Amino acid sequence: MIDLHLIGIGTGNPDHLTREAEAAMNAADLILLPRKDDAKSELIDLRRALCAKVLTKPVRVVAFDLPVRARDGDYLAAVGDWHDAIATAWAAQMAMHLPNGGRLALLVWGDPSLYDSTLRIADRLRANGMAMRVHVVPGITSLQALTGAHAIPLNTLGAPVLITTGRRLRDGGWPDGVDSVAVMLDGACAFTALVSDGLTIWWGAYLGMPQQALIAGPLAEAAPQIVRRRAALRAEHGWIMDTYLLRRTRAFA
Amino acid sequence: MIDLHLIGIGTGNPDHLTREAEAAMNAADLILLPRKDDAKSELIDLRRALCAKVLTKPVRVVAFDLPVRARDGDYLAAVGDWHDAIATAWAAQMAMHLPNGGRLALLVWGDPSLYDSTLRIADRLRANGMAMRVHVVPGITSLQALTGAHAIPLNTLGAPVLITTGRRLRDGGWPDGVDSVAVMLDGACAFTALVSDGLTIWWGAYLGMPQQALIAGPLAEAAPQIVRRRAALRAEHGWIMDTYLLRRTRAFA
Repeated sequence: MIDLHLIGIGTGNPDHLTREAEAAMNAADLILLPRKDDAKSELIDLRRALCAKVLTKPVRVVAFDLPVRARDGDYLAAVGDWHDAIATAWAAQMAMHLPNGGRLALLVWGDPSLYDSTLRIADRLRANGMAMRVHVVPGITSLQALTGAHAIPLNTLGAPVLITTGRRLRDGGWPDGVDSVAVMLDGACAFTALVSDGLTIWWGAYLGMPQQALIAGPLAEAAPQIVRRRAALRAEHGWIMDTYLLRRTRAFA
Repeated sequence: MIDLHLIGIGTGNPDHLTREAEAAMNAADLILLPRKDDAKSELIDLRRALCAKVLTKPVRVVAFDLPVRARDGDYLAAVGDWHDAIATAWAAQMAMHLPNGGRLALLVWGDPSLYDSTLRIADRLRANGMAMRVHVVPGITSLQALTGAHAIPLNTLGAPVLITTGRRLRDGGWPDGVDSVAVMLDGACAFTALVSDGLTIWWGAYLGMPQQALIAGPLAEAAPQIVRRRAALRAEHGWIMDTYLLRRTRAFA
């Protein structure tokens, strides 16, 4: 039997770690770290640094090569194939390092519940007959790091919030029935496709990390600033992770 | 100058605390704990226990009487008056205990960004001319404790999630454009007002606490179970805090 612990580790700031996350890391028989062969490889260094900082016991930490997602063809089909390949890679590591079962820990950016696929990948292994219990340790999401850094609430009083993706916002425009929209997984500045009247944006990149960048203001003024800043930061660091909250004020409606 | 630190403490499990939260509690000159004269008073005991567990320095911890919200009249107006009264109560405590300024910490259930009013109350004090900087320490929300306990994702692949209130769900029915709806602040089982076909619910109460209760399943079957269980638990403990996620499956559409 494998006990899989999916541990939310926040957004790169070791101080985001909860007591529960630290305990789960120390109780693991094996921590698997995915290795990507690209500019984001500094993320594996961040996870290694986290392990070095937190582990007080001799826990085995093993890096494995993360399969690469196809960039062409249908998006959801490509993601499905990619998750299959990752499940296969996990299974190979478990067969090699935990042949008799045990506690396997994976360190998940943010929280395993929000725009993360480790739960879905674990489901594939169980569907294929692997004996596995899944345990989740919540972690601070980039949205919480964003609202915390700007010291703003996610929702207005008693009102709903939609959490969506850049792809959805670009394809569908402003969603019905909400005045607050939080956007994740946006690699292409979907906010530039909105009519900006009456919208305010709070944007953040590298949230919780030393290079954290924040911009906030009326969308009409902030959008071009964010586009420029984002491009410059991406060129400087080789990668970027960012998120934002948009709020509609009703004054003009 | 007051430095106000709003510290997310999760849902009652000390292991939810982040390193950042522990550090902010220990660095405070004063921690204010709101005292309610009702069955929820065991919540102040939880906060006191948290302080006892976490504080490694002699930090002053002071309880103050939280004003009571009017239960009749317009809801939003009553909430506005209540927030004014809380702002006045905070100001009185600061004048008494931090006459020369300093670091004031408030312990917020969950995360200060999500259905919490401390940020709005702080805005009132600043609008009234108080010299105050606001700092937010993110914490694990009840939604994260819910999805973690059920080991489920909040969103489906690449799809949006609406976070809303019981009041909105009851008044407005199933929201447009989403298949996943997370519901907070529902004291009256708004899910019973929905057409249950094709809906699945994951419910949790006292999340992260020893008395945690979980129910999941097709809404048609789970709804009456949750209504009964919720009433029994509320009678037993004198109070209840719960939340749930609803998901629509498209099979029948």
